[in-house]
Amino acid sequence: MEPHLFSPARNPSDNVTKRELYRVAARLFKEKGYRATSMQDIANALGIQKASIYYYIRTKQDLLTAIARAAMEMLVAEGERIAAAPLPPEEKLRELLRSHVRLICSNLDLFTVSLREFTPVNAGDHWREVVALRDRYEALLRAILREGMEKGVLRRLDEKLVGFAFLGMVNWTIRWVDPAGEKSPEEIAAAWEDLFLHGVRAEGGGAAVPPNARNG
Amino acid sequence: MEPHLFSPARNPSDNVTKRELYRVAARLFKEKGYRATSMQDIANALGIQKASIYYYIRTKQDLLTAIARAAMEMLVAEGERIAAAPLPPEEKLRELLRSHVRLICSNLDLFTVSLREFTPVNAGDHWREVVALRDRYEALLRAILREGMEKGVLRRLDEKLVGFAFLGMVNWTIRWVDPAGEKSPEEIAAAWEDLFLHGVRAEGGGAAVPPNARNG
Repeated sequence: MEPHLFSPARNPSDNVTKRELYRVAARLFKEKGYRATSMQDIANALGIQKASIYYYIRTKQDLLTAIARAAMEMLVAEGERIAAAPLPPEEKLRELLRSHVRLICSNLDLFTVSLREFTPVNAGDHWREVVALRDRYEALLRAILREGMEKGVLRRLDEKLVGFAFLGMVNWTIRWVDPAGEKSPEEIAAAWEDLFLHGVRAEGGGAAVPPNARNG
Repeated sequence: MEPHLFSPARNPSDNVTKRELYRVAARLFKEKGYRATSMQDIANALGIQKASIYYYIRTKQDLLTAIARAAMEMLVAEGERIAAAPLPPEEKLRELLRSHVRLICSNLDLFTVSLREFTPVNAGDHWREVVALRDRYEALLRAILREGMEKGVLRRLDEKLVGFAFLGMVNWTIRWVDPAGEKSPEEIAAAWEDLFLHGVRAEGGGAAVPPNARNG
């Protein structure tokens, strides 16, 4: 495409897609922090005029929320697919772990912003709508753990604490993973499957045991 | 102590300790975020004049760094004590898990700021000095894992990935734990000991196996 003669910036008609906007904003929010990133910074990175951004999104907070929501919606969509699959609970857990690691590694900026920059302070009134998605995902995870405990294929552990261990282990990836580094998402997931499944699996199955009453 | 007649604020001689300053600043950085908290906010919360804060600390960034360093120094001190103790590696791992959970839960504001607000952007030139402490702690953890694998009491897994699983599981606590909630630090640590040790422990010990060459 030829550059415009009288303006270095593009028009909305130059097809900045929402996807491109989110991708560029997520990268900047990750690198500079949400607070320190201005709409002007985002416009510059996209090569459009600042005013043109408002064609796509109303406020910087809406942009943050859209990014955080996109990450959580991916997790929930995968989680619902896996929860509904005709698989034993142990396999569902394995699939969930793989899909969660893969999603983070292939959308690192998006998940970093969602997990680090989307705080109650930065999110304001939008906090609850995204937390509702996060809660849905956590409920899916716990339901799989509970199913496994009830069927006796997983050990009878506190499912909330096991769930938080799973989420912490996986979400912490944003803090250390290097997309160009030595570990592929598949290697990371494989090592943790081994560790985590070994940690929760009942030895030789056994009779159905009701899960810990504290977690009702 | 009688309030001052002509000023609602205290003097430096009114004994705001550094500890009190860090505690109040950590609470505000956690609640409002580091960027959105001003030195004026901190002075107000302490009941001193803004100018008096500079008696204790030079910049807001120095304050952030002092808080992050305090958290990491606690971890390293405990880690070094445990690493040097005459305990088998499995017991060291258990002790490290307990001490890490306990430190986070009893210093939640400090650790939340250290792990969430102390980012490269916010830390600036101070980033490296605190990361050096974090690296020391991670090296201690990996050395314990390696010792266990070499002695055949822990399974031969990728020690970096097992280390990150440990750190993620434990550090993620800042995201969900409620100091007034139903789970005590002891209950959290006990459940994770069970999960994590079960996940890494070799069955019935065995011959010494060299750890994965990738982790050398």
